[in-house]
Amino acid sequence: MSDLGWPLRRAESLHGDRTAFSVTYRELAARLSSLAVAPGARIGVLAANTRAHTEAWLGVPAAGGVLVSLNYRLAPEELRFIVEDAELSGLITDPEHHDLGRALGCPLIEWEELLTGRPRARRDLPPDTLAAISYTGGTTGRPKGVMLSHGNLLANAQHNLAATGHRPDQRWLHVCPMFHVAGIANLLACTWVGAEQVVLPRFDAATVLEALERERITHTVLVPTMLAMLLDAPGAGTADLSSLRHVQYAASPISAELQRRVLERLPDCDVAQFYGMTEAAPTVTHLTPEDHRRGGRRLASVGTPVPGVEAEVRGPEGEPGELWIRGPNIMLGYWKRPDATAEALVDGWYRSGDIVRADEHGYLYLVDRAKDMIITGGENVYSLEVEAVLLRHPAVAEAAVFAVPDDRWGEAVHAVVTTREAVTADALLDHCREHVAGFKVPREIELRDEPLPKSGPGKVLKTLLREPYWAGRERRVN
Amino acid sequence: MSDLGWPLRRAESLHGDRTAFSVTYRELAARLSSLAVAPGARIGVLAANTRAHTEAWLGVPAAGGVLVSLNYRLAPEELRFIVEDAELSGLITDPEHHDLGRALGCPLIEWEELLTGRPRARRDLPPDTLAAISYTGGTTGRPKGVMLSHGNLLANAQHNLAATGHRPDQRWLHVCPMFHVAGIANLLACTWVGAEQVVLPRFDAATVLEALERERITHTVLVPTMLAMLLDAPGAGTADLSSLRHVQYAASPISAELQRRVLERLPDCDVAQFYGMTEAAPTVTHLTPEDHRRGGRRLASVGTPVPGVEAEVRGPEGEPGELWIRGPNIMLGYWKRPDATAEALVDGWYRSGDIVRADEHGYLYLVDRAKDMIITGGENVYSLEVEAVLLRHPAVAEAAVFAVPDDRWGEAVHAVVTTREAVTADALLDHCREHVAGFKVPREIELRDEPLPKSGPGKVLKTLLREPYWAGRERRVN
Repeated sequence: MSDLGWPLRRAESLHGDRTAFSVTYRELAARLSSLAVAPGARIGVLAANTRAHTEAWLGVPAAGGVLVSLNYRLAPEELRFIVEDAELSGLITDPEHHDLGRALGCPLIEWEELLTGRPRARRDLPPDTLAAISYTGGTTGRPKGVMLSHGNLLANAQHNLAATGHRPDQRWLHVCPMFHVAGIANLLACTWVGAEQVVLPRFDAATVLEALERERITHTVLVPTMLAMLLDAPGAGTADLSSLRHVQYAASPISAELQRRVLERLPDCDVAQFYGMTEAAPTVTHLTPEDHRRGGRRLASVGTPVPGVEAEVRGPEGEPGELWIRGPNIMLGYWKRPDATAEALVDGWYRSGDIVRADEHGYLYLVDRAKDMIITGGENVYSLEVEAVLLRHPAVAEAAVFAVPDDRWGEAVHAVVTTREAVTADALLDHCREHVAGFKVPREIELRDEPLPKSGPGKVLKTLLREPYWAGRERRVN
Repeated sequence: MSDLGWPLRRAESLHGDRTAFSVTYRELAARLSSLAVAPGARIGVLAANTRAHTEAWLGVPAAGGVLVSLNYRLAPEELRFIVEDAELSGLITDPEHHDLGRALGCPLIEWEELLTGRPRARRDLPPDTLAAISYTGGTTGRPKGVMLSHGNLLANAQHNLAATGHRPDQRWLHVCPMFHVAGIANLLACTWVGAEQVVLPRFDAATVLEALERERITHTVLVPTMLAMLLDAPGAGTADLSSLRHVQYAASPISAELQRRVLERLPDCDVAQFYGMTEAAPTVTHLTPEDHRRGGRRLASVGTPVPGVEAEVRGPEGEPGELWIRGPNIMLGYWKRPDATAEALVDGWYRSGDIVRADEHGYLYLVDRAKDMIITGGENVYSLEVEAVLLRHPAVAEAAVFAVPDDRWGEAVHAVVTTREAVTADALLDHCREHVAGFKVPREIELRDEPLPKSGPGKVLKTLLREPYWAGRERRVN
C-alpha cells in the first residue's frame, strides 16, 4: 500500500530527469530498486549525512527493512545498548565512525553490497508496517526506541507538504543530522514533490554559508544553535543569501534575541518554526511565516497544530497543562517496552510530557517539560522561566535549572550556570530576586567553567545534571 | 480518532472569532455540538447549497451519522431508488425541493430540530467509519452508493491542503453543488485552516460575478461549463476580478479554447485543474498553476497524481491503458453492492474505468472512459477524439460519440450532434474524413435540436444516448 518507497516512486515517474542529490531521481530509484534486505531486519546506520545514509532512509524501509539511525554523539556504552536492544542485523558506518562501529559488537556491512544490481520484486507494505526505530532519551537511563511506521512517516510528510508548501522548483539543503527524524520529514517531502536536494555531511557554519551561496539554496531547516553559529560566522553579514526563500527552525526553543536577528538578516525570506518530537514523527505545531511577519508576543509561541495533528492541553482550565497529541503520525509505541508504551499512549493519545499554555487563539507556548518542573512546597516552578531570567543577566552564558531533593519542601530549585564574564552567585541570586517570586529563586546557583552537557540538537541535558543529586532516591513525576 | 469533526474543532479552537460562513467558527461549532443523530443513521439532504446543507456536511458525520446528499436533478424515480437503497432515516430539504422530497416516501426532517441545544458527548470515530454515501451513475441503471469514510474525506482534504496551499487569509466561494464530493473537499480544507467561506445556493453567472466582486473572493472552484457561462455573461469583461488569486476547475474536461480564454481573462490569477472521481473522494491529479503558466501541450493533460495518491496506467507499454488508483482516499466500496465493489477494488487498487495516456514525465491525458471506447472490427476508437474533431467544425455546438451494435463489426461509431448554424450530416462526415482515420468516422451522424442530456456537473450523458440502441442486447465492456 502506501509504503515509504512511494515518494521516490513518484519522483522517479514524474521527475526522473531532475537532479535529486548528486544523482537524478531515475538513477536513485534504479539503484535502490535492487536493495536486498530481509523483511523486518533492523539495519543500523552510524554515520554523518553521507550518500549511504540518505539512500538508506529512502531505501531500507521501502525494501521491507527497518532503519535504525544512531546518534553518533552517544557514548559507546549507550550505542552498545541500542545495537543489542534493536537486535541489529548489520551496521553501516562512514569512515569516520568505522572504529566506533566496530567496537559495538555488530557486524559491519557495506551499503554498496546491499545493492545487488538485480531488481527485487515490489511488495506491498501495509501502512502500519514498522519503518524505523529512532532512539531517544539515551543519555541517562535506558534509551527508548520509538517505533515509526510507514504510515506515521508518510502522514508527517503530508503534514509538512501542506504546512511548508513544498514545490518541485525548490532547492533544499539538508544539514541537520539524519539520526533525527526532523530532517527525514523534509527528505521525504522533497522527494515526494521531486525537489532538488543538497546534503551536507554535518553542520559547519562556513561550509553551510558557502553551500547556501554556491548551490543557490532556496529552502532549509536548522536548529537554533546552528542559526546562531551561522549568524556569528565570519562573512555571515555579507554572504549572498538572496536565493533563500524559506528557512525553518526546530528541535529546541529559540531565544527572542536570536529570532530577531534571523528575521533582520533575512527580511525577504519566509521564516517558520516547527515543534514536535520523535514520537510524533515529529511535527506537531507550526509557527508560520505569516506569524513571524506579524510579530508580537506570538513569536514566543510554537504556533498552532498543523492540520492533521490534534493537540489538547489537559489540566485546570486556563492554566498550563500537559500536551496530549493524536493523529496518523503518532508512533506505534516503544520497541520492546510495553510499560513505557502504555504510559505514553493512552486512549489513542500520546502524552507528550511537555507542559504548555494555550492563548485564546490556540497558539501554544512551551512552559516546561513535565519532568523539569520543580514542585517545591506545593508550588509549581517552571525551570524554563527561571532559566530565562538567569539568561537575561549579561554575565550568564548558559543556565540550567532543575529540582534537587529537599527534606522540608520536597524539592528545591537548583541552578547551574556558565558565565561569559566574572560574576558571583550572590549577584545572580539578587538578579533573580528582582525578577521572580521568592519561591522561584534558586536555593543555590552553581557556577561552572565547562559548557553544559548537550544532546545532538543542542538541548541541555538537565537529566544528566540532576542525576547526581538524586542518587539513591526516586523522583516521582506525574 | 480522526473524524470529520476535526476540521471544525480545529477552526473553532484556532479561529473561533473568524467568520466562517455567515457565522463565526465558534458559533458554528456551538450549533453543531448539539446535533443529535443515531450512530450510523443515514441522513439525506435534497437541497441547494443552503446553510442546513453546509452544516449537515460539517455536522452529521462528526456526530456519528452518515450524510447522503442527493442530486436534485435526478428523476423522482431515481431519487426514490436512492432513498430506499440507502435506507434513509430522514430527509432534509429546502423549500424549493420540499414537494419533490415529500414524494419520495421518506420522513422529512427539519435541520433545526436536529440541533437539540444540549451538547452531546464527544465520541471517537475510527477513521474507517462510514461518513457519507455519494450516489453516482444514477442516470440509467441502478445508481451506486459510493461509501466514503472519515479517513477517506480527511485524506483527500489533506491532499488538497498540500496541492492548493489553503491558508487562513483566503476567502473561498463555494458554488458547485454540494451533492458532489468535489466541493466538499474544499469545504473541509477551508474549515481546517479556518478560511472565510462564502456559499451560493447554486450557480448563476450574474450572481457569481456579483459575489466575486462584492465579497472580494480570493479562491474558488468551478466546473468548465460554469467557467464558460461566466466568461460569456454580460459584464464579465469589465467586472473587477482583481481579488481572485486562485481558480480551480474540475469535474469534466475543459476545451483548449475555454482554457485559453480563462488564462487570458485572469492573467494574474493562479489557475489549476483537478481530476478525480467520487470513488477517490475525489482528487487524483493536479495540473498546477505553474503548469498553466508554462503552457504548451501539457495544458491538454489532467496533470500528475498529487502526493498521497498513487496512479498507474495498466496496459501495453506506451499505449493508453486503464488508470488504476490507490491511496488513503479510495472509497470503502459500493453500498450493498459487493459485486460492484469486487469489480472496482482489486488488490487494494481502484480500477477507475478511465483510459489514459501518460507522457514521459507522467502527465496523464484522458483518452476516454473504458465504457465509451468503441471497439469496431477489433480497432479501438476513442469517443473523445471523434467528438473533439466534430467540435472543431464551426456549426457544431455539442457532440456525443458512442458505440451502437453492428452485426458485422461488433460495434459501430455513432454520433449525435447539436448545431449552432445550418449544416448537413454529410458535410460533417466529410469534415471527419478529413481529420481522422476511416474506421473512426461515424457510421451515422444524427442532428438534434434540443441540447444533449447532461449530468449535474455538465457531463453529457452518453449512457442515456446509447441505451436505446442496445435495448434487449448486452454490451460487454472489459
